[in-house]
Amino acid sequence: MRFFSDNAAPAHPKVLEAIAEANRLDVAYDGDAWSGRLDGAFSDLFGTQVRAFWVTTGTAANCLALAALCPPYRAILCHKDAHIEVDEAGAPGFFTGGAKLVLLDGEGAKITTDTIDEACDAIRDDVHQVQPAAISITNATEYGLIYRASEVAAIAEVAKQRGLALHMDGARLANAIVSSGDSLADMTWRAGVDALSFGFVKNGGLNAEALIVFRTELADEIAVRRKRAGHLLSKGRFLAAQNLAMIDGDLWLENARTANASARALAKAAGERLVYPVEANELFLRVTAGEAERLRGMGYDFYDWGPGLIRLVTSWEQQDAAIDSLAAAIAAL
Amino acid sequence: MRFFSDNAAPAHPKVLEAIAEANRLDVAYDGDAWSGRLDGAFSDLFGTQVRAFWVTTGTAANCLALAALCPPYRAILCHKDAHIEVDEAGAPGFFTGGAKLVLLDGEGAKITTDTIDEACDAIRDDVHQVQPAAISITNATEYGLIYRASEVAAIAEVAKQRGLALHMDGARLANAIVSSGDSLADMTWRAGVDALSFGFVKNGGLNAEALIVFRTELADEIAVRRKRAGHLLSKGRFLAAQNLAMIDGDLWLENARTANASARALAKAAGERLVYPVEANELFLRVTAGEAERLRGMGYDFYDWGPGLIRLVTSWEQQDAAIDSLAAAIAAL
Amino acid sequence: MRFFSDNAAPAHPKVLEAIAEANRLDVAYDGDAWSGRLDGAFSDLFGTQVRAFWVTTGTAANCLALAALCPPYRAILCHKDAHIEVDEAGAPGFFTGGAKLVLLDGEGAKITTDTIDEACDAIRDDVHQVQPAAISITNATEYGLIYRASEVAAIAEVAKQRGLALHMDGARLANAIVSSGDSLADMTWRAGVDALSFGFVKNGGLNAEALIVFRTELADEIAVRRKRAGHLLSKGRFLAAQNLAMIDGDLWLENARTANASARALAKAAGERLVYPVEANELFLRVTAGEAERLRGMGYDFYDWGPGLIRLVTSWEQQDAAIDSLAAAIAAL
Amino acid sequence: MRFFSDNAAPAHPKVLEAIAEANRLDVAYDGDAWSGRLDGAFSDLFGTQVRAFWVTTGTAANCLALAALCPPYRAILCHKDAHIEVDEAGAPGFFTGGAKLVLLDGEGAKITTDTIDEACDAIRDDVHQVQPAAISITNATEYGLIYRASEVAAIAEVAKQRGLALHMDGARLANAIVSSGDSLADMTWRAGVDALSFGFVKNGGLNAEALIVFRTELADEIAVRRKRAGHLLSKGRFLAAQNLAMIDGDLWLENARTANASARALAKAAGERLVYPVEANELFLRVTAGEAERLRGMGYDFYDWGPGLIRLVTSWEQQDAAIDSLAAAIAAL
Repeated sequence: MRFFSDNAAPAHPKVLEAIAEANRLDVAYDGDAWSGRLDGAFSDLFGTQVRAFWVTTGTAANCLALAALCPPYRAILCHKDAHIEVDEAGAPGFFTGGAKLVLLDGEGAKITTDTIDEACDAIRDDVHQVQPAAISITNATEYGLIYRASEVAAIAEVAKQRGLALHMDGARLANAIVSSGDSLADMTWRAGVDALSFGFVKNGGLNAEALIVFRTELADEIAVRRKRAGHLLSKGRFLAAQNLAMIDGDLWLENARTANASARALAKAAGERLVYPVEANELFLRVTAGEAERLRGMGYDFYDWGPGLIRLVTSWEQQDAAIDSLAAAIAAL
Repeated sequence: MRFFSDNAAPAHPKVLEAIAEANRLDVAYDGDAWSGRLDGAFSDLFGTQVRAFWVTTGTAANCLALAALCPPYRAILCHKDAHIEVDEAGAPGFFTGGAKLVLLDGEGAKITTDTIDEACDAIRDDVHQVQPAAISITNATEYGLIYRASEVAAIAEVAKQRGLALHMDGARLANAIVSSGDSLADMTWRAGVDALSFGFVKNGGLNAEALIVFRTELADEIAVRRKRAGHLLSKGRFLAAQNLAMIDGDLWLENARTANASARALAKAAGERLVYPVEANELFLRVTAGEAERLRGMGYDFYDWGPGLIRLVTSWEQQDAAIDSLAAAIAAL
Repeated sequence: MRFFSDNAAPAHPKVLEAIAEANRLDVAYDGDAWSGRLDGAFSDLFGTQVRAFWVTTGTAANCLALAALCPPYRAILCHKDAHIEVDEAGAPGFFTGGAKLVLLDGEGAKITTDTIDEACDAIRDDVHQVQPAAISITNATEYGLIYRASEVAAIAEVAKQRGLALHMDGARLANAIVSSGDSLADMTWRAGVDALSFGFVKNGGLNAEALIVFRTELADEIAVRRKRAGHLLSKGRFLAAQNLAMIDGDLWLENARTANASARALAKAAGERLVYPVEANELFLRVTAGEAERLRGMGYDFYDWGPGLIRLVTSWEQQDAAIDSLAAAIAAL
Repeated sequence: MRFFSDNAAPAHPKVLEAIAEANRLDVAYDGDAWSGRLDGAFSDLFGTQVRAFWVTTGTAANCLALAALCPPYRAILCHKDAHIEVDEAGAPGFFTGGAKLVLLDGEGAKITTDTIDEACDAIRDDVHQVQPAAISITNATEYGLIYRASEVAAIAEVAKQRGLALHMDGARLANAIVSSGDSLADMTWRAGVDALSFGFVKNGGLNAEALIVFRTELADEIAVRRKRAGHLLSKGRFLAAQNLAMIDGDLWLENARTANASARALAKAAGERLVYPVEANELFLRVTAGEAERLRGMGYDFYDWGPGLIRLVTSWEQQDAAIDSLAAAIAAL
């Protein structure tokens, strides 16, 4: 019973079926029929014209977007605990050619219009200091909080005033959508997001994420950068098929609903132990070393997240029974 | 009946089975059981200790290797028609941080010790000119010729004398091994190859290639570079499983034997039309525009490779009947 | 009596005087009075509004311009013997973040509209091949030939049709202007040049070149890139003063006239030994090893430029007597 | 009477004399007689074998060193107010190919073994997080404090234990040496510094700094990187001559003594207004807007360093009278 990570979960059966279905002779790279349907399918889903790219990792999605939004000599504002800063091995520096990440504080890995203003105002407008070009936010955040559509819109408004682009790392966007009740359109392009890393792998996918480009004039450059970074797979149909399977019949929402419900159930049991409100599928709990050991002794796996702190992540595939028994175990600590 | 590219072919059923088999809960990234078996399995296959990395594209394999073998301020010698030069969107420049490709001539995309010597001798040994650091050869070449193990060894000998590393782009190495009768060990590390892009996708894989590192002291750096380039997938078990399926029971050799046999059958029919000897699974034929149209009219697809020239590529999955009928059609032109 | 290089020559006395004159307290970087006069002085010289930057090397001028004209994932067309390709240690790859140089043939290091067309037509318009973004020409060329204004305009016309920017490496532009009789405006912006590396150091300067930007909307980016590359000196007034001294009273033309006249005198003596017509201040002569040794024995220094070939470069400061005696020595070989 | 910056000061007359003296015909780049004396002269000065490179900016010195000490995929620890972080336009990211700066806190822009340990311990040792490779300290710091030799040695000891290289930005090293009374050897290589940016321009130079490499096996790579970054000037003799003039007869120490003495005199007058102890030639004073205006009204120029704060920098060339009168003015505020 692993609660390490939603990456540890298996792929959803419908995703495997889609792969099997795509296992036919077709044109290489992204010239195939499945890839050809992506733009249309995602434009329908978002209710606006988008360009959609399959990619195999969130890091690739994030950094291809950031490279198109920020030249090498400028900076990207993000939270100091953002995945792009702490868990991508410096990939933004690699993809952008050396752009800088300016790190902002904020509870639960959220940034606000105030922290953005403060960071920007501290940068002298001259050639000696690196000028900002973009903002990147993660929704749901690395600590399982969400930005509501109205919060995204407020950030986008500041971005616009300051001439900054806005990227959203949506590795767990499905969880944020389900949790907020906001529409996909309101949460993204209508709020003012320029490019979105749309995560599927943590949510039941196998190895296909999507990069959604709302400023479609950037798409051709991103297509070249994807190839140049070794991310244009020769049998792209297997990735496109996964993307399509995830949005077909709203599988992505269904999976996220399951994961969020499990997280809420555990949160209820955890009560005062919670470090952050549980708004998506991640829980950060205060437990003693002994308590952690006891849970592990019962067969539950999870990350130690610093002294006296553990992280649990729920996923689409956990059985109600496992959740119930873990909830009971937590309550009984 | 598509003879466009071996990339157009479907994945082998055993590869899909391996993916389905790997669809269980496990540790994320490459901490899973399948990834954990890679080093051992490839070390057994090569008969020496290697470090093996799954990657999703040949471009990633090539360029991660080259970045580890060549600093930003030096050069890689390769054929002017090498895939890294003409078909990877400048990825070597991106991954290495601006290293230069020095382009060599040679029939059928093969380079020789003579062309290497000539190119190196033309470079003044000072800070103004970019000094070479590595050689990259493609086996089988982009025109379907092969280097025999003895030829690789001769190139490696020159490389060693000049202090250059040697990389092999083995997108179609299986075809070269089958065609040459040389052993995998003789063709690679025993000859003096430092790193190998071991291609599986053109040969029945779905989306997993392997990067084999013989100079194992470079492996930790490559692991970091893989992550940094967005190539460390979060559910790596699905790639590792593909790699293992391809080498299990020598599926990679079986598939290449089929493709090569088909190519030989077509070559026999093509006779004088062949531009290069057919040593692997690619054929370059001289045909008039009318002849090309006639073949297409019969349902055969292929690349136009310049005026009066077409390229046919055979793959693991073509039926004997299709090959026979195409052979007959070519003979009858 | 050194004919190695115009870089070996001393700086002109007026340049040293200007440095001494600038040795006062002023604002750091390029906020000083001398730097503040650059845009105006060069705009007057060129007869159009330009942005002018002092830099300390031609490599910096070339590569700052190219980085602004060509994104990392595209290519620059240039002659295979261009300085940016053979003598800048890969600096274009460094400054651009990995852009590719596409190398063209051509007599005397000159490229033509035909070689440009041929090179561009050979590039498939897809994401696999690196698409061109710019052309760079050197005037006078690395072999001492010049492009006339009409030739530059023809190249610029092709560039425009194909959406390519045009950069001119004018390390010896003064020599080309004097030799051609074309005006500075006709040779550059009026022909269609977007950015110019305007060389002064080979022509009597001490350590200040200029980068002239005709597409002034690129200037702010270049200012940032100059700083980021460590090329914004803290006492910029000493460089600005040099630039101003060189154009004041047309010193740059006077110096080039002297050097060109010396070269013509030597060329007359060399006759059939010349490999290229002498249009600027460089001479490439066929001499036997024995003849070269004889000249050296008489106190003349120069480069061996391959077997049976030497290079002589004249400069602003050589005395008529030295030229006459070398001419006599060459004639007497 | 400008107290903006030591960069605003003129060059010392001896430096101009050295430039005039070097104005002879010689070999280009760094093949000249002056450049040929650098390694020896600096080895004598430091009392150990070093490799010395002239460069035109501190940014170039810093970043060439850092690029040799830190691969693109690792990190450099430095103070959050370090010049490389806040005033070099992201140059470290450019030169290293995207390495990360990890920012440490500390009074007066000083880092300690504790802050280094804390920062390193916070980095998980895996491929997801960027591992450190080097530490960079500035001496004197950006706030005019100094590291004593013993403090440098303590930091170097931690660096060694953790396998990190140590770089010193010595833009104002002369001031730190004079202030501390420590020897140049104790302050640098004997303490464990691997590479030093040895500043001369703020201390009476014109446009030549020096990069001193104690780990001499890195020097050849740095020579190539200098060329590749456009920092190998074609008439290098004018830079080498400046470096030699500065160390000849200890001019660098004499100039720093003057500047430090002036700073001490002003510090005495400033008393409680000082934000930091004055250990070199920079003063940070608390003054009201009205007081700042009053000083400006009397003809003194300086930087506003945030609300209620000004920065004064003394230099080698200020007259005692100017210092005395400013001291009186400050005391009288």
